[in-house]
Amino acid sequence: MSDTADTEQRGEAPVDEADGAPRRRVSRRSLLGWTGAGVALGAGAVGGGVAVASLPEQRSQPSSGGEIAFYGPHQAGISTPVQDRLHFAAFDVTTDSRDELIGVLKEWTAAAAAMTAGRDVGEGAVGGLAEAPPDDTGEALGLPPSRLTLTIGFGPTLFEKDGKDRFGLAKRRPEALVELPAFPGDKLDPARSGGDICVQACADDPQVAVHAIRNLARIGFGKVAVRWSQLGFGKTSSTTPDAQTPRNLMGFKDGTHNVAGTDTAALDKHVWAAPGDGQDWMTGGSYLVARRIRMHIETWDRTPLKEQEDIFGRDKGEGAPVGKRKERDEPNLKAMLPTAHVRLAHPDSNGGAMILRRGYSFTDGTDGLGRLEAGLFFLAYQRDVRKGFVPVQKRLAANDALNEYIQHVGSAVFACPPGVRKSGEWWGQALFGDKR
Amino acid sequence: MSDTADTEQRGEAPVDEADGAPRRRVSRRSLLGWTGAGVALGAGAVGGGVAVASLPEQRSQPSSGGEIAFYGPHQAGISTPVQDRLHFAAFDVTTDSRDELIGVLKEWTAAAAAMTAGRDVGEGAVGGLAEAPPDDTGEALGLPPSRLTLTIGFGPTLFEKDGKDRFGLAKRRPEALVELPAFPGDKLDPARSGGDICVQACADDPQVAVHAIRNLARIGFGKVAVRWSQLGFGKTSSTTPDAQTPRNLMGFKDGTHNVAGTDTAALDKHVWAAPGDGQDWMTGGSYLVARRIRMHIETWDRTPLKEQEDIFGRDKGEGAPVGKRKERDEPNLKAMLPTAHVRLAHPDSNGGAMILRRGYSFTDGTDGLGRLEAGLFFLAYQRDVRKGFVPVQKRLAANDALNEYIQHVGSAVFACPPGVRKSGEWWGQALFGDKR
Repeated sequence: MSDTADTEQRGEAPVDEADGAPRRRVSRRSLLGWTGAGVALGAGAVGGGVAVASLPEQRSQPSSGGEIAFYGPHQAGISTPVQDRLHFAAFDVTTDSRDELIGVLKEWTAAAAAMTAGRDVGEGAVGGLAEAPPDDTGEALGLPPSRLTLTIGFGPTLFEKDGKDRFGLAKRRPEALVELPAFPGDKLDPARSGGDICVQACADDPQVAVHAIRNLARIGFGKVAVRWSQLGFGKTSSTTPDAQTPRNLMGFKDGTHNVAGTDTAALDKHVWAAPGDGQDWMTGGSYLVARRIRMHIETWDRTPLKEQEDIFGRDKGEGAPVGKRKERDEPNLKAMLPTAHVRLAHPDSNGGAMILRRGYSFTDGTDGLGRLEAGLFFLAYQRDVRKGFVPVQKRLAANDALNEYIQHVGSAVFACPPGVRKSGEWWGQALFGDKR
Repeated sequence: MSDTADTEQRGEAPVDEADGAPRRRVSRRSLLGWTGAGVALGAGAVGGGVAVASLPEQRSQPSSGGEIAFYGPHQAGISTPVQDRLHFAAFDVTTDSRDELIGVLKEWTAAAAAMTAGRDVGEGAVGGLAEAPPDDTGEALGLPPSRLTLTIGFGPTLFEKDGKDRFGLAKRRPEALVELPAFPGDKLDPARSGGDICVQACADDPQVAVHAIRNLARIGFGKVAVRWSQLGFGKTSSTTPDAQTPRNLMGFKDGTHNVAGTDTAALDKHVWAAPGDGQDWMTGGSYLVARRIRMHIETWDRTPLKEQEDIFGRDKGEGAPVGKRKERDEPNLKAMLPTAHVRLAHPDSNGGAMILRRGYSFTDGTDGLGRLEAGLFFLAYQRDVRKGFVPVQKRLAANDALNEYIQHVGSAVFACPPGVRKSGEWWGQALFGDKR
């Protein structure tokens, strides 16, 4: 079944001329017979960063084998149809060396390109020398790519921290990458906030997402350290028109009016940074706001149905706006309470501001008071945080009836650069001024 | 698409004569068009507690729609083919009233029967009165049963705590339900150990498993409280012969030689409590040991491949025992190091002792030292803890080379009663002496 068990056959891995990275003797997909499914789905892949090999949300026979193209003008994982699971990590950079940091980013890029294609890191979990630690930790051996995307972002503290220009990047900090203001009701835990660098791993299989973050953390060992991480078990938004809108842990559909990943005009207007927006290196990138939102689910669960529906401005069963019949019917905002969540968050209440949401539900054990620690890990991408999340959240924090049942307990903001266009380039290359 | 949004139609829910439980106006599956898939799979269901409507592990086209029969001689979720995801909760009973506790168990049983069939609790998330809190929290609306199983167990402290016979059950405590001895290397956190009652929720969709635990916690509010809970994102064992053995977070297949859910002789010998074993109320039940095992993955990841393979006694790629070619080849224990994990855990090293394992990988954020908090949530079922887990773990704790890379940080043991045979019966009925 496999000669990978034969240690005598181990040796120097051949180099793949296409990307200069070591090639594994055995591909992750072929090892356990996934080749057929992987190749079939891979053949359907379209070029470009937002290309998608399979769209399970739109298919009657969902498949988790699909491969999302890593290279392209935009990073995958933003307009990509939302995958089922999330592992998100914020890293602190622990080295003072700009060169070491660049080294990590180069290694990460090669690893990300491999893992999103369903390959192991480097020579793989079993392809290297028996006397050395394997290049890959191995728990994704035999698993298909599972629509894995890895999306990197740079936090404000990477550019400047405690007044210090750590890596010579201070002048390159985009104006749109603001520190978020304090919102009423925030109760932020510093240990769950901030971070110099983030990586968002989304996949249809959590093992694949966890494997990816873990292997990046391992590559960066001694130079970067995980500051905080978050597992998301269920997506709460869709970027695919006509797909079923998932429900959040309050039992409601709350991601109906989202920027569609196929709506290039809306993406250009609301999501992608454009020439002239500020720093050139961010053109084609996007700004990410991450908020850990704890839900007081026990209190919510004791609230009458009618009140729940009034608070959201939607009915619970269908998700239709107040007074309407279907989820996607155009809402009549004036028919809702002035404090209704949908009304306050709607673009018409915010000067047309839209953000692309791709949040996930989380449950992280128990809070010590006999209650489940659960909520929404909110992720939103936008062209400019000052015109996207900040004004919308100001309005929500001041007026939203939902505030009685939620609390923002973690917060971070990141500048996510444009996509890596081809093999040999690396995450952050334009930021660090390397035009190679 | 739905008249569930029409609050005018809400009112008394009709009672289902078959089980006396309120019937929902709108089934979870029909609400969003899942009826076809649900019925098709449901039609394949076999009677009995170990019956399975679908066996994704054995199919080329996995489906998550399947329904596992709730009623039967054994509880589902033990010999059932292992589902992809886990939400496990240990509860403390906070009421002193035996009648209140029985009331919770009765309500739980009705809710479990509904949810495992893909139905909401009670009148559902949208089927009740608009002026009352919904009976169901709603986040599983529209989702198929997803092979949900709910398995209950009773901990030693339910029978007696601090020398007190809390609910008149002390005389009914099975001898096989021992408190586990302290094993060398244990570093148990009391906040992640013990519990009066446990519920294991397994499903192919984590949203369905989380929904189930949450709704049980909600039903028990004021009488029971969640002591600790654990989310598992990836199964590490299979009870289905010929299915791919999943990998743990060390990258190895470690559940190869497991009790098969189809092997009734092995189940009768090693898993199900039998007449004459002790307490009659446990006949057909099983004893569950739960251990939270933290992995020091950073140390593991720096260990050479050959050493990793020697420690397990298997090769990493294929999972074959030392000196063999395929995963399921009969291991030659003497070819392994005396400290090899497979050798020490093998029935031949333990007087034939076998336990049915159904553990899951976990990743719970970060440990504050820049490392991922990750490991194995070990779950094992057996006929007698004294002849199953205890002798095997004694051997492992003393000798296993793996101990350098793992630490047991949580521990609990539960007596899981036999299955609920038919509608109207309830979890623990025989234990509480109610023959009704």
